[in-house]
Amino acid sequence: MKSDIEIAQEASMLPIADIAASLGLTDDDIELYGKYKAKLSLELYERLKAKPDGKLILVTAINPTPAGEGKSTTTVGLGQALNLLGKKAIIALREPSLGPSFGIKGGAAGGGYAQVVPMEDINLHFTGDFHAITSAHNLLSAMIDNHLHQGNTLNIDARRITWKRVVDLNDRALRNIVIGLGGPLQGVPREDGFDITVASEVMAILCLSESLMDLKERVGNIVIGYTFDNQPITARDLQADGAMTLLLKDAIKPNLVQTLENTPAIIHGGPFANIAHGCNSIIATKMAMKLADYTVTEAGFGADLGAEKFFNIKCRLGKLKPDATVIVATVRALKMHGGVAKEDLKEENVAALDKGFANLAKHIENIKQFEVPLVVAINCFPNDTEIELERLKELCNQCGVEVALSDVWEKGGQGGIALAEKVIQITENQSSWFHTLYPSDISLKDKIETIACRMYGASGVDYTSKASKDLESLEKQGLKTLPICMAKTQYSLSDDATKLGRPDGFRITVREVRASVGAGFIVVLTGQVLTMPGLPKVPSAVHMDITESGKITGLF
Amino acid sequence: MKSDIEIAQEASMLPIADIAASLGLTDDDIELYGKYKAKLSLELYERLKAKPDGKLILVTAINPTPAGEGKSTTTVGLGQALNLLGKKAIIALREPSLGPSFGIKGGAAGGGYAQVVPMEDINLHFTGDFHAITSAHNLLSAMIDNHLHQGNTLNIDARRITWKRVVDLNDRALRNIVIGLGGPLQGVPREDGFDITVASEVMAILCLSESLMDLKERVGNIVIGYTFDNQPITARDLQADGAMTLLLKDAIKPNLVQTLENTPAIIHGGPFANIAHGCNSIIATKMAMKLADYTVTEAGFGADLGAEKFFNIKCRLGKLKPDATVIVATVRALKMHGGVAKEDLKEENVAALDKGFANLAKHIENIKQFEVPLVVAINCFPNDTEIELERLKELCNQCGVEVALSDVWEKGGQGGIALAEKVIQITENQSSWFHTLYPSDISLKDKIETIACRMYGASGVDYTSKASKDLESLEKQGLKTLPICMAKTQYSLSDDATKLGRPDGFRITVREVRASVGAGFIVVLTGQVLTMPGLPKVPSAVHMDITESGKITGLF
Repeated sequence: MKSDIEIAQEASMLPIADIAASLGLTDDDIELYGKYKAKLSLELYERLKAKPDGKLILVTAINPTPAGEGKSTTTVGLGQALNLLGKKAIIALREPSLGPSFGIKGGAAGGGYAQVVPMEDINLHFTGDFHAITSAHNLLSAMIDNHLHQGNTLNIDARRITWKRVVDLNDRALRNIVIGLGGPLQGVPREDGFDITVASEVMAILCLSESLMDLKERVGNIVIGYTFDNQPITARDLQADGAMTLLLKDAIKPNLVQTLENTPAIIHGGPFANIAHGCNSIIATKMAMKLADYTVTEAGFGADLGAEKFFNIKCRLGKLKPDATVIVATVRALKMHGGVAKEDLKEENVAALDKGFANLAKHIENIKQFEVPLVVAINCFPNDTEIELERLKELCNQCGVEVALSDVWEKGGQGGIALAEKVIQITENQSSWFHTLYPSDISLKDKIETIACRMYGASGVDYTSKASKDLESLEKQGLKTLPICMAKTQYSLSDDATKLGRPDGFRITVREVRASVGAGFIVVLTGQVLTMPGLPKVPSAVHMDITESGKITGLF
Repeated sequence: MKSDIEIAQEASMLPIADIAASLGLTDDDIELYGKYKAKLSLELYERLKAKPDGKLILVTAINPTPAGEGKSTTTVGLGQALNLLGKKAIIALREPSLGPSFGIKGGAAGGGYAQVVPMEDINLHFTGDFHAITSAHNLLSAMIDNHLHQGNTLNIDARRITWKRVVDLNDRALRNIVIGLGGPLQGVPREDGFDITVASEVMAILCLSESLMDLKERVGNIVIGYTFDNQPITARDLQADGAMTLLLKDAIKPNLVQTLENTPAIIHGGPFANIAHGCNSIIATKMAMKLADYTVTEAGFGADLGAEKFFNIKCRLGKLKPDATVIVATVRALKMHGGVAKEDLKEENVAALDKGFANLAKHIENIKQFEVPLVVAINCFPNDTEIELERLKELCNQCGVEVALSDVWEKGGQGGIALAEKVIQITENQSSWFHTLYPSDISLKDKIETIACRMYGASGVDYTSKASKDLESLEKQGLKTLPICMAKTQYSLSDDATKLGRPDGFRITVREVRASVGAGFIVVLTGQVLTMPGLPKVPSAVHMDITESGKITGLF
C-alpha cells in the first residue's frame, strides 16, 4: 500500500494559474508562489462581495478516538466527489502546523486519494503565513520587554504579563522559562514561556478578520497583561499594532492549491481548536463561497468543540449561514466509544457498535439544535464488516438522519459520490434554519451553561472561585457580549477524557478564564490545556530526508 | 527630499519574469513569488556550470563611522551604471534581517536612487529564507532538549551545549534565559539563550554550500555541544540533518529581484559579519557570474573584516577569483577618522582629511596584498567641498590607485558612470593575481597572526589561556586546516573601537575561540560580540504602519 506522500508525489497537478482560471480568475487576481501555490488578492475579495454566495457545507465528526475518524480526508474527498458530479466545489481547510509534523504526525493534508497538494510544501513553510504570525507575535513580545527595560512608563506589572512568545515547533523545554537574566543591560528578569504558533491570539485574529484594517483594529485590542493598578495594557498602548499588521499584510491573503483530482482548495490559517476556535479564516470561507457552488470546510476536533465553535464563534462573527453539516463517523471509532480496545477493533462487534453509537446520536441531536440539514458520513475501513455497516446505517435511519458510506481514502472522489449525492439532495430539498445556540447579550455564565448542558449533556457547571471572579471582572470590563471559546478535552463529551460514548450525570468544572479581546472571544478552560506540545522519544524528524534529486521522505 | 521608501514606491518595476528573460532564462528556470520576486532553480545552477564566468567585483569600504559610507548604495549604483554603459551586470547582495528593521535601521536595500526593489518585501519576509533558517536552527534546538528529556543516551553535558536558539528579532530579554522549568514533565532545566537569526551557523552554512547535498553534509557536521567525556556531539548524532535540510530546500535557491533601474539583483543569505563571514551565498555569486558579464557584490563592515573574509573564507571555499575591488570612502568619514566630531563635519577641513586618509591608505595596502585590481570610489555628500574632493583624489593618486567620484544616491546609475568606467578599465587592462592571504595548512595561531599583523597592522597577538587551550584542542580535533573568521570591532583596524584612523603599535587580544564546524571556519573573538541586539527606547516599529490601500510607512 502506498503512503500518503507517495500518492501525493504521483499527483498530476495543474498549474495553479489554470486552477484559478477555472474559477474565472485572472492573473491579476493571484500572486504565484511557485507553480502550484498562489495567494488570492484582497482586491479580488472586495470585488467578489457583490456576487451571490454558494452553499456552505461543514464537515465535523464524533469525538475522536485513537482509531481515527478521517475528517479532513472526508472533507477533501467530498469536494472531489461534488466536482465529479458536475458541481463547482471548493474545499476550505486549515493550514497544517510545522511543529506536530516533526513530532508524531509527520504532516497531513487529507490522506490516501483525498489529499491537497503540493503536500510537501503545504506541510513545510507553505506561503509563509505561520512564520509571519510568529514574527508579528514575537515582535509584540520584544516590544513588551523592551518597554520594561526602557523605564516602563506604562507601569506594566511584569508578573501580570499574559502575552507569551511563540514558535512553530514542538519544544517542551520552552514551556516555562525565565528571561532577561544577566544584569541591567540584558533586560528585566521575569517568568515567561513559549506557546506553539497555532495557539497565538494573532492566529485567531487573522482567521476572524474581515479585512486588513479589521485585523489591525483587533491586533491593537490584544491585551498583553496588566498594570500594577490592574488596568489592561493593549498592543495599541505599546504602539505595536501598525508594525504587526505590516508583518501580516500577505499572511491575510488566502492560499489557493488543489486536490489530487484538481479540485480547487483554499487553505488559510489554522488556530488551535481548544483555546481558539479551530477553523480556517473567515476570508477564505467567504471567498470560496463567492467562487463556488459548494464550499466544503471543516472544524477541529469533534462536533461538541469544532461544530459548536464553528457555529457560535465563526458563523456569528462572520455572519455565515451554513447550508448543511456532515458528521463523520467510523465503525471502528464507535466500537471504541462502545468499550472495545484498539487492538480488538478487527473483530466484528455489533453490540459495541450499538453502545458506542450513543456518541454519534448525541452529536446528531446537537447539530439538530442549530437547525442545519445533516448527513452522517460513514468513513469505511477495510476491517468493517457488512453487518456492522448495515447496522450503523440502520441506527442512523432510526434517528431520522440521512447517511452515506464514504471511501475516499482508497478511491478519491469516486468513493465519495454517494455522500456527495446526499449532500446535494439535502441542500436542495431542505432549508437551513441556522441560528447560534445563544444570543450575545446573556451573561457569560449563562453562555457557558448553555454550551455545557445543551451540547455536552452536562447537568451543570461548577466554577473555581478564581474563574467566577474573573468572569465577573470580564463583564465589568465590558466583555459580556463576546462568545465563549471552550477549552475542553476533545476525547469525551464531558471534561473527563476517559468518559467515552455518551456520558451523563456529569458536571463541567471551569478552572480558569482568559479573554482573547483581539480575537473577540472568552476562553473558558475546563482542564489543563497544553499550548506547547513536546516531541516524542523518536520524533518523525529523524526519519525525514531529501535526496539530491529533491525526493522527500518521512512526511507521511 | 524624498525618503528611500518613497523613492522605492515610485519605482517602475518590470515583471520579474521579464528580468529573468533578459538574462536568457525561461519560465522553468524561475519560481515566482508574486510578480516581482522569483527564486532561481538549482537545476539552472547545474546547467549554467558549463558556461564561462563573468567578472567579479567586490565592493568594500573603509572602517565605518557614524558619518556613513554608503557601501550597499554604491554597490547597487555601480551595477546600474555598468548596465547604462551596455554591460550585462548583476548585483549580488545579502538579504536584510527583520530584527534591525524594527529597531534602529528601519530596513534598507541600498538607498536613494540606488536601491533594490520591491523594497518593502525585501525588508519584510521576502521569500521566507530567514524563516526557514530560523525553523531549521530551532528544530535542532528542540531535538537537543528532547534528547535530554527522553533519557540522554548520547550522554550530552547540558552545561556544555553551545547550540542556542534563534529568532529574527531584536529581543535582548532572550539573551540569557533558563529553560525547562516546571518539573519532570517539562524538560530538563538548563541555561540557554537566543541569538538573532543572522548569527545562526545555519545561515553561514547556507551561504557557503555548493549544493543541497553539500548543505546537508555541513548541517550534519554542526557541533551542538559536548558529552560529559568532552566529546563533540553533532546534528548528525541527533539525526536532525535530514529534517533540517528538508526545511532549507527552498531557502537554498537564490532570489532574483531588480534595482530601481531594472538591473537584475540576486539577493541571497545574510550571515553576521563578525562571528560569520558577512557575504551573500556562494551559489548566488556563482550564478550571477554565469549570467552576467559583471557581478557586483559586497561584504559586511570595512575591508579589514569584510574583504578579508570575502577573500580568505568565501573565495577560498568557493574557489572564486575576484577581478576587481572597489573601496568606498567618503570625505565625511575620513574626516572623522582624522578626529573631527560628527557635528563639525559640515566644515571644510583638509587637514583632518589628510590625517584620516591613513585609514583608507591602509585598506588600499591591504587589498594590494591580495593582488586584486583596485579602484577607490568617493561617495559624494552634499557638504563635501571641491577642495576636499580634489585633495582626496590627489591622495589616492599618490598611492598609485585609481579613483572615481560616485553620486548614485542622488543620481542613480548616471551618478556611477565615472566609477563604472574605471571598473571596466581596470578589469580589462589589469590582471587579477588573486590569492588568499594564508595557506590552509599553517597553524591556527599563524593564521590569526597573519591577519592581525598584515591586515590590521598589529605588532602581535595575545591569547587568553582559555583561547590558547581551545586552539590546541581544535587542532587536535583535526580542524587545523579551517580558515579563520575574526570577530573584531568594525570601527577600528585594531580591537579597540575608539582607535580611528590608522592605529599602530597595538596588539590584538584573542579572548575566545569557537568552531563553526558545519560552516567550515574557526571563529576568533577579540572582544564582546553581541549576537542578539536590543531595541532602542523608541523602536522604528512604533512608526510603521499600513493603510487600507496598502500604503506602507515607516520602513525608511
